[in-house]
Amino acid sequence: MATDRPARWPCYYADYLRLDTLLSQQVPESERLGIPAHDEMLFIVVHQAYELWFKQILHELDRIQEDFGHEQVEDDRLGRIVHGLERINEIMKLLVHQLDVLETMRPLDFLDFRDLLSPASGFQSVQFRTIEIRLGLKSEERLRLGDKRFDLHLSADDRARVDRAEIGPKLIEQLDSWLARTPFVQLSGYTFSTAYREAVTRSLTSDAEQLRNVEGMSETQREIETRAIAGALERFNAIFEPHTGRSAWRMSFAAIQAALFITVYRDEPVLQLPFRLLAALMDVEESMALWRYRHSLMVRRMIGVKIGTGGSSGHDYLRQTSDRHQIFGDLFQLSSYLIPRSVLPPLPPELKSRLGFAYADRAAE
Amino acid sequence: MATDRPARWPCYYADYLRLDTLLSQQVPESERLGIPAHDEMLFIVVHQAYELWFKQILHELDRIQEDFGHEQVEDDRLGRIVHGLERINEIMKLLVHQLDVLETMRPLDFLDFRDLLSPASGFQSVQFRTIEIRLGLKSEERLRLGDKRFDLHLSADDRARVDRAEIGPKLIEQLDSWLARTPFVQLSGYTFSTAYREAVTRSLTSDAEQLRNVEGMSETQREIETRAIAGALERFNAIFEPHTGRSAWRMSFAAIQAALFITVYRDEPVLQLPFRLLAALMDVEESMALWRYRHSLMVRRMIGVKIGTGGSSGHDYLRQTSDRHQIFGDLFQLSSYLIPRSVLPPLPPELKSRLGFAYADRAAE
Amino acid sequence: MATDRPARWPCYYADYLRLDTLLSQQVPESERLGIPAHDEMLFIVVHQAYELWFKQILHELDRIQEDFGHEQVEDDRLGRIVHGLERINEIMKLLVHQLDVLETMRPLDFLDFRDLLSPASGFQSVQFRTIEIRLGLKSEERLRLGDKRFDLHLSADDRARVDRAEIGPKLIEQLDSWLARTPFVQLSGYTFSTAYREAVTRSLTSDAEQLRNVEGMSETQREIETRAIAGALERFNAIFEPHTGRSAWRMSFAAIQAALFITVYRDEPVLQLPFRLLAALMDVEESMALWRYRHSLMVRRMIGVKIGTGGSSGHDYLRQTSDRHQIFGDLFQLSSYLIPRSVLPPLPPELKSRLGFAYADRAAE
Amino acid sequence: MATDRPARWPCYYADYLRLDTLLSQQVPESERLGIPAHDEMLFIVVHQAYELWFKQILHELDRIQEDFGHEQVEDDRLGRIVHGLERINEIMKLLVHQLDVLETMRPLDFLDFRDLLSPASGFQSVQFRTIEIRLGLKSEERLRLGDKRFDLHLSADDRARVDRAEIGPKLIEQLDSWLARTPFVQLSGYTFSTAYREAVTRSLTSDAEQLRNVEGMSETQREIETRAIAGALERFNAIFEPHTGRSAWRMSFAAIQAALFITVYRDEPVLQLPFRLLAALMDVEESMALWRYRHSLMVRRMIGVKIGTGGSSGHDYLRQTSDRHQIFGDLFQLSSYLIPRSVLPPLPPELKSRLGFAYADRAAE
Repeated sequence: MATDRPARWPCYYADYLRLDTLLSQQVPESERLGIPAHDEMLFIVVHQAYELWFKQILHELDRIQEDFGHEQVEDDRLGRIVHGLERINEIMKLLVHQLDVLETMRPLDFLDFRDLLSPASGFQSVQFRTIEIRLGLKSEERLRLGDKRFDLHLSADDRARVDRAEIGPKLIEQLDSWLARTPFVQLSGYTFSTAYREAVTRSLTSDAEQLRNVEGMSETQREIETRAIAGALERFNAIFEPHTGRSAWRMSFAAIQAALFITVYRDEPVLQLPFRLLAALMDVEESMALWRYRHSLMVRRMIGVKIGTGGSSGHDYLRQTSDRHQIFGDLFQLSSYLIPRSVLPPLPPELKSRLGFAYADRAAE
Repeated sequence: MATDRPARWPCYYADYLRLDTLLSQQVPESERLGIPAHDEMLFIVVHQAYELWFKQILHELDRIQEDFGHEQVEDDRLGRIVHGLERINEIMKLLVHQLDVLETMRPLDFLDFRDLLSPASGFQSVQFRTIEIRLGLKSEERLRLGDKRFDLHLSADDRARVDRAEIGPKLIEQLDSWLARTPFVQLSGYTFSTAYREAVTRSLTSDAEQLRNVEGMSETQREIETRAIAGALERFNAIFEPHTGRSAWRMSFAAIQAALFITVYRDEPVLQLPFRLLAALMDVEESMALWRYRHSLMVRRMIGVKIGTGGSSGHDYLRQTSDRHQIFGDLFQLSSYLIPRSVLPPLPPELKSRLGFAYADRAAE
Repeated sequence: MATDRPARWPCYYADYLRLDTLLSQQVPESERLGIPAHDEMLFIVVHQAYELWFKQILHELDRIQEDFGHEQVEDDRLGRIVHGLERINEIMKLLVHQLDVLETMRPLDFLDFRDLLSPASGFQSVQFRTIEIRLGLKSEERLRLGDKRFDLHLSADDRARVDRAEIGPKLIEQLDSWLARTPFVQLSGYTFSTAYREAVTRSLTSDAEQLRNVEGMSETQREIETRAIAGALERFNAIFEPHTGRSAWRMSFAAIQAALFITVYRDEPVLQLPFRLLAALMDVEESMALWRYRHSLMVRRMIGVKIGTGGSSGHDYLRQTSDRHQIFGDLFQLSSYLIPRSVLPPLPPELKSRLGFAYADRAAE
Repeated sequence: MATDRPARWPCYYADYLRLDTLLSQQVPESERLGIPAHDEMLFIVVHQAYELWFKQILHELDRIQEDFGHEQVEDDRLGRIVHGLERINEIMKLLVHQLDVLETMRPLDFLDFRDLLSPASGFQSVQFRTIEIRLGLKSEERLRLGDKRFDLHLSADDRARVDRAEIGPKLIEQLDSWLARTPFVQLSGYTFSTAYREAVTRSLTSDAEQLRNVEGMSETQREIETRAIAGALERFNAIFEPHTGRSAWRMSFAAIQAALFITVYRDEPVLQLPFRLLAALMDVEESMALWRYRHSLMVRRMIGVKIGTGGSSGHDYLRQTSDRHQIFGDLFQLSSYLIPRSVLPPLPPELKSRLGFAYADRAAE
């Protein structure tokens, strides 16, 4: 600690933020080797800023997952889970924006130091891996960089960190358990599944009929789309018939039914916060996809088809992960099974009242 | 024209902007049919705002293409071409942002009026098609929505507009001609192509060698990447050997050589503006790709796998166009053939002086 | 309706959006006068886009104010009020972004047609005035452009529209009534006001003491800040003593007390949505302030100290309105009276239970 | 250096970025004191990210000021000065965006640890002070936080750093010298000042006449605006009459004349890059103002009128600095003295040719 602080300052800005140490960690390779490249500083600062923000995301995930781990997730706990996810989403949007700054580095400027970093690569960010894993990205669904597990490239320490994350709880599984516990769906003989299933079947069937009547559509095309609808209906029915074999869904059927229930009746007081939870998860998934995609564009511009610093053809890899490294895809799928409010089965009055607030209920007593 | 304006007002805000008419063109179908859906207004306003901005983009393209059509594109003309492209890029970024607003419409709210619009679709935007066509998207490279030409879905008037665009000048071709006229590349025995070709061959060969020495890489992977480098070298050599058959490039070799020359020596005074031109074209291409991608995410969230209002599975279509509807891909490819400044062949002094300003030259007299 | 649409198209994109009419309303004065200025189109398109979005904001306000007008604002109604405000906020952020596009017009390009528009001015936007008025901006608090009411510059029709808005309901007043009806604050002998008042007094007093102990602070400065704290305490006490004369607050004391209660106990299930309402109102106020400020920067850059097209020195006017045209300032003031959770008076159990959900409550029966 | 890296990795991601050290510098006071406050981590991360970016801005300023220090600033040097300023501007926009993330911290969450940080304050950021000073903010124009020099609050080390910056070169002075050396303005009997002065006088006089003819304007208002125009004319004339005493301008008259020349004839090849320099400086000034303003809004929301952690009423201070801590105000002032291209005095052919490129010139030989 610096000795020149007057005793009266219990907290000094530069000490509090540890600026002396923090601002000494930017050490360009090009300078160390006596061939200074101006833009390497930018490269370092951008990546260090990424890592700071990844740490913050993990800090939020710590609390979110701790809160979600409780047997009973009360509404104030749920409130801060949602708030934490919304913050993660804001951070992800900032990370997309950081690419605008990085892109002020032009290919020729990058070439001045690019080879010095080989084979280091952003794919080695353990914090980012950890975020993906804790959200729920499965090791076997991870796109390969070549034909091996990516973590052969990691140091022993880093590999250990990744392994610890692999055996810890996953957000998607915690969500699954929480959703599966939703009380209202199976309450006192209520028939959400039956009523809604009928309504959706009617709706998809009508879509198929509509298709038959579209003029000017080729038979091939009509057939393709008819099959798409049939497939959608099959996937939908699968939710309610758990024993029909391998599923196109990742989450349990109980969870999917609950998510559907929440989505459809989200205006009810008790369901508003759960709905915001689902929306926040989709927001996070979208902003991560966008970051990957935007990243892939930048890489293409920066290094073309050349291999990246980590030995991969980065553009293609990133573009593909923006599609494939999806975790909460089931939630997006639900949109296919929504039906207009006008044909929505009404809630039984008993249930509707339970979805309200205590004070409203009491007021009537 | 309103009659209550005092004679002293030569120009009145509401008249100038034709607000009476403009603000009467938002006519929700749901209202017309007596089943008002609140969010249809948002849907209309967003799309009308898109069309206003498309008109502005076309207005910029009018001048850009007119300027580019001249036999000699002087530097002040080139300056405003670049400025116009930079403006188009700013507009595209705004259009991406508009999706944030549209996404405040939730799937269930969209369902309230979605079926009423069938089979209208944003794919029928003639202005957007025209932008794509005038930039250089070829009809045969356009991704099919089903098995037919998209424009069967257009009205006769709209089809005629699209056809007119198809036979007009394309920006990429104008760029090609302009680049191919670049004087410096072949000036007075200067050997840019020879010198640079040698340098790049050395660089890619060294990349391949480096690959052979990376430990811990599987043979399969090594082979894949070695082949990628060999392919890159082949494509690069093709630029200088115009008669080797079918090309992986869209632009002419003369144009590609000039673009390479500009990119490599962009710091020279005369080449700074041409370099900004190439950068602006890549910016526009990137922001259009981003818009398509972001759009595809929104569609997935809004309607899942259901067919879009135009009868397409919109999410997939849009995601694919974000990769395939590329026009200036050649410019991005060039990054693969850049080499560090340290191994760049120096310019002959005679040429270097010609790349400077008149006043600098005079100063030496 | 165009006659060339095949009968089978019940809804055609271009017809639905009225593109023929919409895209004919951009009529540059400079063109009409035979001295075409390229950038006038941008000027028109930006302003028309603004007006489209203003219309959308008014459309949202229509429903928000209608919902707020009900004697009982149930939670599903409140949910969509909040959603509407959040949408308005997203739109305002887009409008800030539009200035980035407008700023691609450089001063010299604006000069090419600026004089032709005189004395039309954006200050004549009736829709924007209406938004301000309906939110609650008072006519007498409006900053003057010169020494007269701004609307002398309006046409008779437009003046009538503004006058209609002036006599209609104001959002801030509707908020006030709704807040004042909050049941919990005065429920069954609960002493929120007493308990909280004591706690805040303790906290501000401790702030004042802390001040006395800061070393190295001049007496003048210490006095200024001590007075600031005393003033804050006075304003705070005024909330609970309604008869002490002229108030520094705009809203009623009942409303302010309720807003404070909601802010302090926002984690309780029943108060989460009301808290989001207050947050959304502050978001809207902030984004409007930001738009004005950003707008003022642009005007300074575009025309310097010259008078604006409407005869005003636009930069100063806009910058001042960004401070003065505040409506929900009371909500921001509340932050001064928050105290740490650790010293927050606990809620009586009876009340705490009423702030929960019905189902939780029932579960215990 | 970690010992578990295989010898074959010359560069490892986590080592290169010094992640072990970097990610250990986030030490919340609240945790140290045993009363952990979740959001303090966010507070630290945001501020550390700010400091990383400030370091990057200083890194860019290093090169910009070194380049500007040369007796002759050649065009390639000027090119990278502009590029550096454009990068600083992109970074400033990112810093504005970071406030969106910080604002996810709500007042009550901040209160959980706010008092622990007292009296540390962001105003103690030496890097930010240094940026302001090196750009050209004068010590005597700095808004006071209370009645003393802010740096009494700094440690001896930090004060020394600030003092070093105070005696170093300022960007605005380097700009001034460079502008004052612009050759064209006074070349071979060319009368830019005379010709342009006449033209502007005509234009402002016509503005004043126009004012006299606006109907419906009160005499008071007319007088105010007439005086504004007279003042503008006086300030303008002062540029050309250096001996009339105290100036409303900060830069030298030679520099201002050159800046005006560049702005007016910016389309000429030689002047395009100098014009981009002026534009980039204004962009930086605008984005810094926007950051201060946006920051002031956040502070108001977070702590109301309470004193900030540094003992200041932060909202007011920041809002005022967004107006007063202006450095390149002269450049914005120039817009007041632009006249339409149609009345611009034409350049003598000899000069026009010198503003072109060497190759164009040679072509005519």
